[in-house]
Order: sequence, then C-alpha cells, then structure tokens
Amino acid sequence: MKPYVLGIDIGGTNTVFGIVDARGNVLASSSIKTQKHSNFNDYLEELHTEASRLIDAYDATDKIQGIGIGAPNANYYTGRIDNAVNLPWPSLPLAQLVSEKFGIPVAITNDANAAALGEMTYGAARGLKDFIMITLGTGVGSGIVINGQVVYGHDGLAGELGHVIIKRNNGRLCGCGRTGCLETYCSATGVARSAREFLEIRTEPSLLRNIPVEEITSKDVYDAAVQGDQIAKDIFTYTGTLLGEAMADMMVFSSPEAFILFGGLAKSGDMLMRPLKEAMDKNMLSMFKGKPKVILSELKEADAAVLGASALGWEAKPIVAATPAV
Amino acid sequence: MKPYVLGIDIGGTNTVFGIVDARGNVLASSSIKTQKHSNFNDYLEELHTEASRLIDAYDATDKIQGIGIGAPNANYYTGRIDNAVNLPWPSLPLAQLVSEKFGIPVAITNDANAAALGEMTYGAARGLKDFIMITLGTGVGSGIVINGQVVYGHDGLAGELGHVIIKRNNGRLCGCGRTGCLETYCSATGVARSAREFLEIRTEPSLLRNIPVEEITSKDVYDAAVQGDQIAKDIFTYTGTLLGEAMADMMVFSSPEAFILFGGLAKSGDMLMRPLKEAMDKNMLSMFKGKPKVILSELKEADAAVLGASALGWEAKPIVAATPAV
Repeated sequence: MKPYVLGIDIGGTNTVFGIVDARGNVLASSSIKTQKHSNFNDYLEELHTEASRLIDAYDATDKIQGIGIGAPNANYYTGRIDNAVNLPWPSLPLAQLVSEKFGIPVAITNDANAAALGEMTYGAARGLKDFIMITLGTGVGSGIVINGQVVYGHDGLAGELGHVIIKRNNGRLCGCGRTGCLETYCSATGVARSAREFLEIRTEPSLLRNIPVEEITSKDVYDAAVQGDQIAKDIFTYTGTLLGEAMADMMVFSSPEAFILFGGLAKSGDMLMRPLKEAMDKNMLSMFKGKPKVILSELKEADAAVLGASALGWEAKPIVAATPAV
Repeated sequence: MKPYVLGIDIGGTNTVFGIVDARGNVLASSSIKTQKHSNFNDYLEELHTEASRLIDAYDATDKIQGIGIGAPNANYYTGRIDNAVNLPWPSLPLAQLVSEKFGIPVAITNDANAAALGEMTYGAARGLKDFIMITLGTGVGSGIVINGQVVYGHDGLAGELGHVIIKRNNGRLCGCGRTGCLETYCSATGVARSAREFLEIRTEPSLLRNIPVEEITSKDVYDAAVQGDQIAKDIFTYTGTLLGEAMADMMVFSSPEAFILFGGLAKSGDMLMRPLKEAMDKNMLSMFKGKPKVILSELKEADAAVLGASALGWEAKPIVAATPAV
C-alpha cells in the first residue's frame, strides 16, 4: 500500500486537489478553474500538469495509492458524470479518462457522498456505522451510510435527500424542475429566498431592509440575526423547523445513530439548531424519540472537499473493463 | 446444515408457524391464537407443544436449522419486542425465551422486514440487491434492502416507511400518535377512512351508500369500483396517487431497482397501479425517472408471513451472551 492518495473536488467554479496521507493530513493542495476549458481534454491536461507539479514538489511520485474524485452527478458504479448542469462538460467517463491520464486507479462519487466518506474516515463519523451526512451549501446534499457502507443504490446515484419534497403544494421552484424540494428552503440560497419572502409579507423594520432585496445572502441574514433582528431570527427558526421535520422523516428510513451537518449554514449555532432539534423531536416517531445525535462536521471547511474525495482514493481499483468513451 | 427452518409469524390475532425447506416450500403449517394467553409463558408452552407436534408429525426432529420470527416491533439486534401495542405482552426478550424453550437458534425481526427477506429468498426479489418492500395491510409496513442486506439501522428498528409524513398539515390521526402518516391513507383502513370522507363530502349516488358508513371496508370499496362506481374509483385514484408520491420520495434515499408491493390492497390491479405509477413518475427526480420497477409479491398470501419469518431462520445463530430477562 502506497502512503498517499490524491483527492480532487470538482466544483462548479474551482477544482481543488490535494495530497492526503492515511491520517487525513492534507500535505499539499492547489486548485484550477473548472470553467476555464470547455474542452475536457484541455481541462484534464491542466489538471494533470498542476497535480504533477504538486506531487513532484512533495516528492510523492509513485507514492499515490489512488485518486478519489468528488463531482456533481458522479456515479460510483459507472465512473461517469452525466447531465451535470454545473460543469462545462456535462457527460463523460470521468474515472476512465483521469485514470488513463495519471496512470493511477480512480474512484468517483458525488460531493456529498465524498463528504460522508471523509467524515467517516477522518472526521466526526469515525466509528459510526449508521449516519446521514447533510451538506448545507448552495444546495442541500446528502451522503447516507448504513452498516458502514455509503449507500449508492441500484444505479449509483442514491442519497439525494436535498430533493425530498417537503412542501407538496405551492412549494418553491427547484433547480431540478420540480417544486417543494428540501434544498429550496434549507440551503444558503433557500435562506436568501426566505428573506425575500419574509420581507415582502411582513411590515416591521429589519436590518435586512438596508440591503437591496435581490442581493441578500444567507450570511446577511445570519449577521442580522446575531444583532437581534427579529425577522432574521424568524427566518432561521423557519429554516431549522423545516430541516428538523425532514430529518424526522429520514429517521424512519434508516434509523441512523447521528446526523452530521456540514456547510456554512450548519455553523449558525443555536439559531438554527434549537428549532431544528425541537422540530425533529416533535415530529419523531416515538420509537426513535431522543435517539439520533445531531453533530457538526469536524473537518476544516477549506480541506473538507479534498479530504472527502481523497477518502475514496483508498478504495480505487484499476479499471479492468473500460467503459466506452463518449 | 440441517434441511429445514421453522418460520413463526406472530400477528395481533393469530400466530402462524410452519416448517419450510431451502426452496421455500411450506411443508406443514398450523396456528394458535395470539391473544389467548396474557401470560407469555403459557403462550410459549402452547406454541412449543403445537410446533413440536407438527415437527414430530413431519419427522423433522433434529432437522430444524433455526427459527425465524416475524413480530410487531421485533428488534433484530436485541432479540426483544418492546412496546408492541397489538400484542398481549408488550415487552420481552422474545428470541432468548423461544430459543431456550425449543433449544434451537432464533432470529427475529418485524413482519415487514421478514416479508422482504422472504421475497428475496423465495419470491419476486430473488436476484435483486436493492429494493423496497411495501406491505399494504391493516397498516403500511416496509422492509428496505440495500446491497443485498436488510436495513436494520443503528437500533435495529429501521424501515418504518408507513410512518413518513405525507400530509404535514391537517393530516389524519395515526395510531402512532402523530398525524399525516402514509399508513393513515394507503392501508386497508386508510382506504376505508377515505371512503367515509368521500361519501361525506360528495353528494352523488354510490354503491357504498348501501353500507353502514362505519362498516365500509377496503374490500367494499374495491367491489364497488369494479362495478364502475365513480366514488369508489376515485378513492383508489386518491390512494394510488398518495402512495406514488411517497414512493418518489423514497427513491431519492436509496435508489432501489424495484418496489415490491404486498397485501390485499396491492392486488387491486390498475385501479391502484395506474395512478400510483403516474404519480410516481410525475414526482420523480429526473435522474431516476423511468428507472424503478413496481412489482407485486410472488409469495402466496397464506404462506407469505411464515415464509418471510422462516427466511430469517437460516441466519439464526445460537445466543452467546443472553440479554437479561424482563
């Protein structure tokens, strides 16, 4: 077994990559712009050049056991990304192409599954066999672990809990084309949408009224709430309540020992956590009441994506039967 | 490996048990009344006497590999039943007591998980590694199989999909004490409740108006629908739509290859299946559209409970460290 893995997180804006050791130390990392090359081969060329530079600088040539990649819509089983709307190359056999370029085994999965793996390998979920990771970012992602294994489902795409319908009627329009999805309410953008709704419906003064309404971010709402702004505080109560209700429903599915929350919104403290826990408890089937823990990610936000992706690198296997190229 | 297992299904009314071979043939079966003995030891005595009689008659003494039991609230990990409101002895270390009495290893789980195991071992789910079994009976039960394993969760009680909340506001009161649970709409009793609601709200004639309203059963609704009764047909559309919406949400969790439906209601044919499939498709996240199959159980209803329980018998292990008796 070689001592390092390379973790690559392909986001809509940046591709971050780093060399990680078995203890979860990010030894060196760097990034390139994801959107710079509309041709995937050009992107891969730059990624390979920059990653090789990093590997050489760290004297890690021939010491990389595997490459793990977290990317939107990445399919663990097929090694493909398909219909990834945030990437400039929506469909291709990602694992195969990267593996051929680097000459190293590659495994891929979506970013939330990678986050769950990272948490299980290096973070707050060490020792947990049954947990649900919920990432509260621009959207809401999830990685479900049952009996120590990430749930990939029959097609490799399981664990899309940001898209459970929490408002069946008159729900908000989601990027997925449906309405009422969890992520339209409980993501950073969901909080900003709630702010616009609350400010329109309610009439009292609010610090948020000093900001052009289309520019309000979840961070603005947080800052206003910290200063005691009632509307801002109510937005967090609303968000936490909806998330807690949804989590109570997740509980009847796999009865996890813990929920692990990750992302900027998760760090909102009691403003979010108190209504979340209250709603979860109030809506919990009695047999599960008081059981699940709700804990925060222990991975540094700057490192988390690379760490999560890298955790998958340890289980990457050489590709035997190659899938046909696009 | 001995050639037979004993399957025991402990229901609220009857306890059915049978000798089953490795191919899923129920070689002999019998039953006793669950409610006859308020003292569990008396019940166990009768169960042991009757089951021994069956085993002796079949010349199967010393040929029983294990005993599998399906029972409400039965916990696979602890071997206990706790707070089973439909049983006369709500809490006890069931696996230990039965194992000591019979001198044979015992494994237990709830009836819906047993049904999923039965389907995977002998029925429609042979060869499937990822599926969700939904039992439509007096209530709605579920058994979730991921990567070939029944999902028990951290506490052994996972897979209670009859209790996902499908109506967050103004939902029907459920036996669990909450409101809006799936089983208050999509079970046999749920259909009867829908009938009472529909007959009260609507004014047109219906065959169902010939039956005293409190006595209407789901079978009555089915019979009326078959005869073309519009209200009865609409009740099935309503039921199927709600179930299909709920199943679309289950899909984002574990992305099963198939849903397997079991129970009297599942045999309602297109009246239920057409609206169910339409609603599932309409509410499905696009990445999963058209993927999951919806299939009916292949186990004979009379044998299914015993077969399901018996399937667990093959994996029963001798109890090493006994749990303390009640």
